Amino acid sequence: MKNRFSTVSLYVTSKSKRVISIAKQCKEVLESKKIKILANEILFQLKSKNLSIKTDKDIVKESDLLLAIGGDGTMLNCSRKYGSEGIPILGINLGNLGFLADINPDDLTSSLLEVLEGKYSIDRRFFIEASFTGSKKKYLALNEAAIHSGAIAQMIDFDLFINNSFVFSQKADGLIISTNTGSTAYSLSGGGPIIHPELEALCILSIFPHSLSSSPLVLSSKSQIKVVLNQSSKRCKLSLDSGETVSLKKNDIINIQQSDKFLKLIHPLDHNFYEACRNKLGWGKGIIEN
Amino acid sequence: MKNRFSTVSLYVTSKSKRVISIAKQCKEVLESKKIKILANEILFQLKSKNLSIKTDKDIVKESDLLLAIGGDGTMLNCSRKYGSEGIPILGINLGNLGFLADINPDDLTSSLLEVLEGKYSIDRRFFIEASFTGSKKKYLALNEAAIHSGAIAQMIDFDLFINNSFVFSQKADGLIISTNTGSTAYSLSGGGPIIHPELEALCILSIFPHSLSSSPLVLSSKSQIKVVLNQSSKRCKLSLDSGETVSLKKNDIINIQQSDKFLKLIHPLDHNFYEACRNKLGWGKGIIEN
Amino acid sequence: MKNRFSTVSLYVTSKSKRVISIAKQCKEVLESKKIKILANEILFQLKSKNLSIKTDKDIVKESDLLLAIGGDGTMLNCSRKYGSEGIPILGINLGNLGFLADINPDDLTSSLLEVLEGKYSIDRRFFIEASFTGSKKKYLALNEAAIHSGAIAQMIDFDLFINNSFVFSQKADGLIISTNTGSTAYSLSGGGPIIHPELEALCILSIFPHSLSSSPLVLSSKSQIKVVLNQSSKRCKLSLDSGETVSLKKNDIINIQQSDKFLKLIHPLDHNFYEACRNKLGWGKGIIEN
Amino acid sequence: MKNRFSTVSLYVTSKSKRVISIAKQCKEVLESKKIKILANEILFQLKSKNLSIKTDKDIVKESDLLLAIGGDGTMLNCSRKYGSEGIPILGINLGNLGFLADINPDDLTSSLLEVLEGKYSIDRRFFIEASFTGSKKKYLALNEAAIHSGAIAQMIDFDLFINNSFVFSQKADGLIISTNTGSTAYSLSGGGPIIHPELEALCILSIFPHSLSSSPLVLSSKSQIKVVLNQSSKRCKLSLDSGETVSLKKNDIINIQQSDKFLKLIHPLDHNFYEACRNKLGWGKGIIEN
Repeated sequence: MKNRFSTVSLYVTSKSKRVISIAKQCKEVLESKKIKILANEILFQLKSKNLSIKTDKDIVKESDLLLAIGGDGTMLNCSRKYGSEGIPILGINLGNLGFLADINPDDLTSSLLEVLEGKYSIDRRFFIEASFTGSKKKYLALNEAAIHSGAIAQMIDFDLFINNSFVFSQKADGLIISTNTGSTAYSLSGGGPIIHPELEALCILSIFPHSLSSSPLVLSSKSQIKVVLNQSSKRCKLSLDSGETVSLKKNDIINIQQSDKFLKLIHPLDHNFYEACRNKLGWGKGIIEN
Repeated sequence: MKNRFSTVSLYVTSKSKRVISIAKQCKEVLESKKIKILANEILFQLKSKNLSIKTDKDIVKESDLLLAIGGDGTMLNCSRKYGSEGIPILGINLGNLGFLADINPDDLTSSLLEVLEGKYSIDRRFFIEASFTGSKKKYLALNEAAIHSGAIAQMIDFDLFINNSFVFSQKADGLIISTNTGSTAYSLSGGGPIIHPELEALCILSIFPHSLSSSPLVLSSKSQIKVVLNQSSKRCKLSLDSGETVSLKKNDIINIQQSDKFLKLIHPLDHNFYEACRNKLGWGKGIIEN
Repeated sequence: MKNRFSTVSLYVTSKSKRVISIAKQCKEVLESKKIKILANEILFQLKSKNLSIKTDKDIVKESDLLLAIGGDGTMLNCSRKYGSEGIPILGINLGNLGFLADINPDDLTSSLLEVLEGKYSIDRRFFIEASFTGSKKKYLALNEAAIHSGAIAQMIDFDLFINNSFVFSQKADGLIISTNTGSTAYSLSGGGPIIHPELEALCILSIFPHSLSSSPLVLSSKSQIKVVLNQSSKRCKLSLDSGETVSLKKNDIINIQQSDKFLKLIHPLDHNFYEACRNKLGWGKGIIEN
Repeated sequence: MKNRFSTVSLYVTSKSKRVISIAKQCKEVLESKKIKILANEILFQLKSKNLSIKTDKDIVKESDLLLAIGGDGTMLNCSRKYGSEGIPILGINLGNLGFLADINPDDLTSSLLEVLEGKYSIDRRFFIEASFTGSKKKYLALNEAAIHSGAIAQMIDFDLFINNSFVFSQKADGLIISTNTGSTAYSLSGGGPIIHPELEALCILSIFPHSLSSSPLVLSSKSQIKVVLNQSSKRCKLSLDSGETVSLKKNDIINIQQSDKFLKLIHPLDHNFYEACRNKLGWGKGIIEN
């Protein structure tokens, strides 16, 4: 069968033995299918006539598919870096079934071969982008943007607007604007609902609000969200995907909206969102009875 | 200005003085615009040459608009009865701003005149319909369908399927399947998120689940939801909009999905969902500080 | 070694094979220690020269110890029936480690022998008693008393007083007054905190409150709790330990306070509350990582 | 009537006009009763023959009562500084009724006179103290000790022990150990229960736990709490009363227990805990009905 992908990149964020060994196995499978292989710098030791080490820029330019080996953190990283540029991503999970990375190393060869032969589905996930007054940069997030004091029990004070309608004023440790993709990540720890990946929605959730009447708010991913920091919000930060963090100033206005970029997440055909929920979240495991 | 509506019905569910007095005021405004007026039986005392008492069937057949006078309960009632048949509904609230009924009696004449002159927006809300094995009836709900034991601390035991995928098995006092419209009603008391009316989504929420790992699940309103009652679920009921309740049998299968019927909710032009949230839910009212 | 207990009763609530088989094994262990054995009616087939079938009254009069074989439901039953009369109770769990019944059938012989030889601890648990206007009966509960509408999404309307101080007026599906013992039962499903068995405390928790500002309230078990039903609370019930249920009338006043009766729960020496939490509640089992 | 207090100190943390004006009013009332007045440095402008500016040390040595003017923050500050040394504290609230400071400026003269004449109750609140390996200092808190990563969405990884029993291992943004007094403060924002001031209890609550099975745990204030940071908890901090923050190292062991110091909080005779709950938390304010 003809390959769907003629150039495939390997991407890792760790040099651990296990990661390198899985990368090697991927390389062998790709070689067996005569696919051109690229890899990021960390995998320099796998360099060979079939595998070239490439810069991010060249990976983006030349890849038809990227194999991300690691956990959800690695997936988030390469989704923003390569996925946002249109490269489809297939995640190979180090451990258990993940929400983003769902090829199990135990089935690696057979699952990978199936994908290479065209047996896969494409799961299209939207990014959000955040920008703020005084900066021209747009910050991309797949899971969530969080606006917060950068500290426990230090409140920020802000007004929330959606599509230019005033929603509420609040004091809280922070505010999370999560995508459907991010609804099973940080937002979930804070009591947010799980949003099915096919529903293009955002969830707005306060972090330790100074109010008992706060509820998560789910709304269309097309909504324009604006957070206006008040005078008293001295120390305030914007975090993307629980990683990259930038400082905000009091009176800053933060705009968050759906990006026009999408992630093409590649799944084996037996991928099932609810199975991932059951496995990772312990769904349906009752209080054990006697 | 030409009237948008040539026949308008008045609908009430109570004979209280306040309700009758508001109905009279509506009648006067409608008469001033030379609109033909219908009303349901409870309003028989308002009968006159301009106002005819009609059956539900005739109200549905003849009305261009229905004015519902009461609280959210009245609105739910007439939404299922008339709204589902295509009659646009305008709610006149007895007290404070409501989520469904949002004309304040204090502004009744001016607000009503504006609507009659075409200054209104139409808010289209979907219904869900529930059916179960052994019955051909389809039960309509605007807010939520709840499957439950009919008692406190009596668990039902069921499997949940969405679009024919198994989601989880659970023991709980019950399960709520709420619409976006219902997200500010019963579901909210159980910890469900608020879903913006423009996002066509459902929320599935367990009632007192026998598990700590249960989270609300938000998904597309196009989802097919199937609940399979297990052997041990002896007493089980289906409730619609916290009202009509029917008995289920063990092993019954309940199907819930979006109906092809929609409610046309009429709002004055200054209607604002977030204002309703702030007023009714106390949003943004912090723990009062010193 | 001298036996601590000269007369021991067996108590079961089911005739299942497994229960009868465990009861037989208990009988053999007790016979080996030459202990006089009593049993309730359900165990009539075990009747022999060493084992007499007895009424509840005689079991209370003659037993030094009662072995309850079953789950937490069986334990609740016999705690109210015999435990409240001073008979120490040892629970033999049908399945996994329980919160009340904590002898595992796999270790039955050795664990039981240890207890019979005096190697045990006594865990003293308080009961609460509920009474209401128009009835002289006092209703006993080990886990919780719930005042509720007897239905889903049917609110009751009440005022809460503690030690004669007004606390709040509320509309809700109901109100749970849970003991520390009950904090790992029904109250937990509703979001109540876990209260350590050694802290003599109650938790008051609203069921689906018509308010977002409701929080669980933990207070001394010596508190006098009074719930005054308002005019509009038509259908209202009082349930004890998620079992026995009695009807209340509107305007009824319900008083709930610590009983002067205590349960003496017998534990093997290796009993550990936190181990039960980990096992039954999945404590410390994170969202599974990749 | 004889004064109960012969030397009274004024304590403020701000120079705002309102604070100074209230301090002046207090001074006048105290002068009218011929009470010796001390004050902290910030109030130097009130210095007179009846009012001496004193160091913390002298305030502790000489005062029979301290009037704290400000919000709950000011109260926490002076509770740790002077209250822990045995000086009774009366809080004068800048705004609304507080949980700790409950004299309303509007009733200042009459309320203060009543207290000075002996019409008051003493509310004894316990402190907790935290210490950790490698430091001899004991850190005092009235509300809560929090162990956390110092950042949003940065997990710490720890084992929890209570009275030397292992409770659970967890990954979370942090852990709050709150007193009954602190149960209406930061812990409440995170979903913790309200604990009545008369119940000597602590609440342990995870901050954004990486687990859905986490519940608040309420236990006796006499419990010894030990948190062992694991290898991977790189950045970790200990915060006291949402203020003072110290850095911890990976593998540090933090011990938290009741201090042998108590705060004597002075209340006017009409003080009522539940009234404070209703006022500050909006208790019993339902979702506003129509």
